[in-house]
Amino acid sequence: MKVVALTGGVGGVKLAHGLSQVLPPHTLTVIGNVGDDFEYYGLHISPDLDTVMYTLAGIVNPITGWGQNNETWQMKTMLQTYGEDVWFGLGDRDLATHILRTDWLRRGYRLTEITLHLAEQLQIPHTILPATDDRLRTMVQTVEYGLLPFQEYFVKHRWQPIVSDVSYDGAETAKVSPEVLEAIQQADLIIICPSNPILSIAPILAVQSMRELLMSRSVPTVLVSPLIGGKAIKGPTDKIMRELGYIPSTIGVVQFYEGLLDYLIIDVADASELKTVQELYPKLQILQTSTLMQTIDDRISLAQYVLACLENEEIR
Amino acid sequence: MKVVALTGGVGGVKLAHGLSQVLPPHTLTVIGNVGDDFEYYGLHISPDLDTVMYTLAGIVNPITGWGQNNETWQMKTMLQTYGEDVWFGLGDRDLATHILRTDWLRRGYRLTEITLHLAEQLQIPHTILPATDDRLRTMVQTVEYGLLPFQEYFVKHRWQPIVSDVSYDGAETAKVSPEVLEAIQQADLIIICPSNPILSIAPILAVQSMRELLMSRSVPTVLVSPLIGGKAIKGPTDKIMRELGYIPSTIGVVQFYEGLLDYLIIDVADASELKTVQELYPKLQILQTSTLMQTIDDRISLAQYVLACLENEEIR
Repeated sequence: MKVVALTGGVGGVKLAHGLSQVLPPHTLTVIGNVGDDFEYYGLHISPDLDTVMYTLAGIVNPITGWGQNNETWQMKTMLQTYGEDVWFGLGDRDLATHILRTDWLRRGYRLTEITLHLAEQLQIPHTILPATDDRLRTMVQTVEYGLLPFQEYFVKHRWQPIVSDVSYDGAETAKVSPEVLEAIQQADLIIICPSNPILSIAPILAVQSMRELLMSRSVPTVLVSPLIGGKAIKGPTDKIMRELGYIPSTIGVVQFYEGLLDYLIIDVADASELKTVQELYPKLQILQTSTLMQTIDDRISLAQYVLACLENEEIR
Repeated sequence: MKVVALTGGVGGVKLAHGLSQVLPPHTLTVIGNVGDDFEYYGLHISPDLDTVMYTLAGIVNPITGWGQNNETWQMKTMLQTYGEDVWFGLGDRDLATHILRTDWLRRGYRLTEITLHLAEQLQIPHTILPATDDRLRTMVQTVEYGLLPFQEYFVKHRWQPIVSDVSYDGAETAKVSPEVLEAIQQADLIIICPSNPILSIAPILAVQSMRELLMSRSVPTVLVSPLIGGKAIKGPTDKIMRELGYIPSTIGVVQFYEGLLDYLIIDVADASELKTVQELYPKLQILQTSTLMQTIDDRISLAQYVLACLENEEIR
C-alpha cells in the first residue's frame, strides 16, 4: 500500500509524522508546500519542507514544532551585532540546511533532488517531495501593508494583518515534477493533512495540473479537517477563512476542497455540523474522531484511524 | 600622522593590532590580503580580512588567532550530519560575516564598502581595506596535487605539499580601489607587517600599480621581518621560501621586497645576519629588537618601536 500525504508546516505535519510511524518504510510520500519558500540574506529557505524533514527525522524542536531541537542562535546574534534587524529565526543548525540547499540550487540541482538527498542523509525511511521544482510563492494582499510575500505576512507581521486576497505567484507555469506525478499515480490513498487550506494546501493544488491529477485518481482522498470546534489549534486558518469569505467551519473547509474529497474526518467537537455537511455533500463519507494531536500517541492513533479508511474502502 | 599597514592573517595582524592600540582613532589604515578569499558552499569567505577585523574588534579567538571568541560549531556539525566533508572551519558566529558579505556582494556592493560597514558596526576606530575590490586569488602549484586554490593548499592539506610556484590569479586586471589609493597617498608611514611575504604580502603587491604606488611614495616604508632566527613563528614562511628558491632568512626576505624598503626591523635572534644584509643593501636602515609578539604588551611595544622609525625620520 502506497500513501500520499499533502501537507504544509507545523499543523499538518503532525499527521504526516503519525503516518510515518505507522506505515512500513518507503510506503509514504509526503508532498510539501513550497509557497512559503523565500530568499533571506541570499539563502533559499523552504520552511515547510524543513518542518516536514526535521519532524520525520525526529530532530524537530518539540516546543515550537519548527526548527531543530538543541538549536542555538549564534549566527543570528552576530547578525544583530552587525546592526541587522533579523525577523526570521535562523538557527545555527538550521542554517546547514539553508546553506546546502542554496548552494546546490545554484549548481543546478532540482529542489526535489536536494530534498531527497537531505532526507536520506537524515535516514528518513519515507519520501518527502516539494510540490514543484518551479518557483511558486504565496503572496498575501493585506489591508494594512498591501501585497506581502508570505513570510513577511506570517512571521514579520505575525499573521495579524487583515487579508483581502491570497495568490500563488508562479503557479501558472509551475509544473508537477516527475517524482510527484509518479507518487500520485501509484498511490492507493491520498491524505490531505489538517493544514491551513488557503496558505498550505492551496499552493500545492495551484501547481499546474495538480488538481486534475488528484481528481483523476480512482483511489480515495481523505481530508482531516484543520478545524476543531471551528477554530485552528494554532495559526490563522479560521481568521483567514473568515477574511476571505469562507464560512470558518467544516462547511467552509469542504467547500474549499469541493470535488476532491471522498472522506472527511472531523473532530467530535464539530459533530453538530455533520448533518448539514452530509446534506450538502451526500456522497462524502464523514467520520468523526478526536483529531487533536498533543502527543506522539495522538498522532499515531489519528494516522491509524485515517488509514482505516482504505480498509473500509476495500470492504465496500 | 597617518599610517598604512599591509598585512595578511594571523602573524602580521598581531602588529596591526598593536598599532591600532597605540595610534589615535582614524589614523591607521590596514590593507588586507584578499588572495586567500574563496567561495565555500556558495559563501564568499575573506579569511584574512576577517582575522584583521575580529582582532581589531577584540573578538578574535585568542587561542587560534583566527575566528571568533566564544564560537560554536553547530552549523558545521549539521553539515557533517548531512554527509559533508567540511575541511574549512565555519563557526556559527563567523557565518554571519560570510552570509552578509556574500549577500551584499550579490547585491552589487564592493568588498571595500562591505568591509568598512562591518568594521564600523564592530566599532573599530580604524580603517580596514581589502587590497582590491576585484577578484584576485592566490594559486599554489604543488608537487603532490598540482595547482591548488590557496585554502585547499593551506587548510585542506595543512600547507604540507611541496610548492613549486605561486601565482595570483586575476592580478593582471585587479585594480587598486579609490580608498586604498587615497590611504597610501595620505600616509606618513607605510608598514609591512611580519606576514608571509609570498602568501600574504605578495598578493597585495600584485594588484595593478600597487607596487609602483608604494615605490613612488617619499615617506618611509618599514618592514618587520616575519622570521625569527630564520624561522616562522607559525605557518610555512621559511618552508615555502626554501621551496621557491629564496634564502630562508632575513637576506631572502629583503631580497623579496627589493626596492620597497627604507627600514628593516629584525629580531635580535637574527643579529648575525645584520652585517651581510647591510653590505648588500647599504641604504637600508636596519634596526633590531625583540619581534616576538606573545602578549598584547609585546604587540604594543613592537608597534611603538616601529612608529619610532618615523620620529627618527623627522629628526634626520
